[in-house]
Amino acid sequence: MGDSTAPGWMRRALQLAASGPWPDPNPRVGCVVVGPDGSVVGEGHHHGAGSPHAEIEALEVAGEGARGATAYVTLEPCSHTGRTGPCTEALIDAGVSRVVFAQSDPNPDAAGGAERLHAAGVHVTGGVLADEAEALNARWARTVALGRPLVTWKLATTLDGRSAAADGTSQWITGEAARADVHVLRASRDAVLVGTGTVIADDPRLTVRTPDGRLAADQPLRAVMGLRPVPPDARVRAAPGEVVRLETRDPRAALDSLWHRGVRDVWLEGGPTLAAAFLRAGLVDDVYAYVAPALLGGGRPAVADLGVGSIGDAHRLDLDEVVVVGNDVRIHAVPRADGPDPLPAPVSGSTDTPEPLAPAASSR
Amino acid sequence: MGDSTAPGWMRRALQLAASGPWPDPNPRVGCVVVGPDGSVVGEGHHHGAGSPHAEIEALEVAGEGARGATAYVTLEPCSHTGRTGPCTEALIDAGVSRVVFAQSDPNPDAAGGAERLHAAGVHVTGGVLADEAEALNARWARTVALGRPLVTWKLATTLDGRSAAADGTSQWITGEAARADVHVLRASRDAVLVGTGTVIADDPRLTVRTPDGRLAADQPLRAVMGLRPVPPDARVRAAPGEVVRLETRDPRAALDSLWHRGVRDVWLEGGPTLAAAFLRAGLVDDVYAYVAPALLGGGRPAVADLGVGSIGDAHRLDLDEVVVVGNDVRIHAVPRADGPDPLPAPVSGSTDTPEPLAPAASSR
Repeated sequence: MGDSTAPGWMRRALQLAASGPWPDPNPRVGCVVVGPDGSVVGEGHHHGAGSPHAEIEALEVAGEGARGATAYVTLEPCSHTGRTGPCTEALIDAGVSRVVFAQSDPNPDAAGGAERLHAAGVHVTGGVLADEAEALNARWARTVALGRPLVTWKLATTLDGRSAAADGTSQWITGEAARADVHVLRASRDAVLVGTGTVIADDPRLTVRTPDGRLAADQPLRAVMGLRPVPPDARVRAAPGEVVRLETRDPRAALDSLWHRGVRDVWLEGGPTLAAAFLRAGLVDDVYAYVAPALLGGGRPAVADLGVGSIGDAHRLDLDEVVVVGNDVRIHAVPRADGPDPLPAPVSGSTDTPEPLAPAASSR
Repeated sequence: MGDSTAPGWMRRALQLAASGPWPDPNPRVGCVVVGPDGSVVGEGHHHGAGSPHAEIEALEVAGEGARGATAYVTLEPCSHTGRTGPCTEALIDAGVSRVVFAQSDPNPDAAGGAERLHAAGVHVTGGVLADEAEALNARWARTVALGRPLVTWKLATTLDGRSAAADGTSQWITGEAARADVHVLRASRDAVLVGTGTVIADDPRLTVRTPDGRLAADQPLRAVMGLRPVPPDARVRAAPGEVVRLETRDPRAALDSLWHRGVRDVWLEGGPTLAAAFLRAGLVDDVYAYVAPALLGGGRPAVADLGVGSIGDAHRLDLDEVVVVGNDVRIHAVPRADGPDPLPAPVSGSTDTPEPLAPAASSR
């Protein structure tokens, strides 16, 4: 009864879910509450950590209209108490008689909602337009499955793979359009991560600026990892917004620290040594290479030693997208799952001197 | 009188000129002979060195019909005797009363045709659709202006600018589709040039093969430059067609030898040192970089030392075309004319040991 209308209402819920950016660390969720007479009594979507879940927003609009209603939700309602109470209890308390959801919750901490609703006498249907809901939250689902933030490594390189000239100068390898493009992509991440070596050598701001050069309103967290001190006058300190110091050279430990701060999407702009450490550990999910049609014939390589001896052991990536940006080429590629096995042992994350790794991360 | 029809007949002559490939070392030329009654009495185009020029081919078809006729030619008729007699004399002898041409001959050895025709009482009009004729022969005009063959450097590189792994293995950096694409472009050149270092290290065939792996009917000249001996069992020797040995490490001397053999379009597939020698001498006209989405983190760089110390001195290129070929990216770029000045002194063209340069080329 009423199942033939479910995909239509779920499509509306998916529209609501997709109406904002990824509210990471949470997934995108939309909810439509339809009364017994078939009219919409409430709609909502999740705006981000600390905000009400989509179901709560929709139920607040519905009020008493939720009694006997059907709630269409793009993700299985949560049954745990996080920053907000469990949605299952709110749905039960509001008198909803039926819940239709798309994607089952892959988060073990939040799953079990369907069983809880069923036990309370609510009719539950799952899996309606599940593929579309999963596609919407693919990156979120991947972070949940991996239990760590996703890492996007950005590099700017010449055609011959150099990220700085022999004298260390690197401003600018790519043109203005490519640099503006970096700011757009950087803005879509939670955090920008570099090593202390890059802070000392290049003194970057790591902020997101608008095309007219002003600071954007929302700034990703700026994170600096490594054991060397960050100079007091480093520009990364001067810019507004939070700077996190990760006193480790271990990529896993750094990501663990960021994960516990709610970071799910890291933009890695480190130098060749830091990039190599992440690549060797199998901790790079996306690569954006800005390739300038230029040749240096020497200087700093785009990536340091990867422990690759022979061509068969190369780190291979799958090409995803190639875009011409000004006079440069942006190549988006994804490391192959069947690539070299990540190193089991910690790897050298030093950007200059060979020192032992810190056993664990500390952040402040 | 009749001038309003000139662009129409010239367009036909341009079509004839464009009907075949570049017959280098000669330009593409087409000719239409139109009788006094306005009907076409002869057509022709140039098929390549040693073949009749377009005017001669058209006059042969026209026979007596050329008396009082107008000849439309895409290039100013030559007034010199090369492998064939001067076209000016053939036009005069055939009784042609008027010659309309598009592009003036930029070749100082062949120019002066218009004056010669005029002196013989032939009415001459030049510059009709000259831009289109020049575009058709842009590469030819460039070789004439430079007095040397054009050089296209092809490289296959990882995202981090490596052309071989640490152990020297390089087969294969790019995928099958990219390698097939190389064969198509290689086939469009007169000669393939490598250094002895590449012959010894990689033992390439340097032939053009069809997609099904068979040898193509037409093979570019294969040229090997450098002072080290080519091993008797080198695969470059085994393949059919001509192999030229250029016993020099000087790019200019090598190109001079090839120029005198009629080569106008060289496909350079040398290793990093040979490529660097050509780049430093300002002798690279086109770059085709096949960039594989792969990372090696070490190994042979795509290009050796270019004498660049600072980012401002990088060899800059203008992006022309970016194409995804299989899982690889083909970047076509053109070195900027305002790039670093070519070195005045000979540069090291050695592919392995630092030895003094040969003062001049010798070829056999």
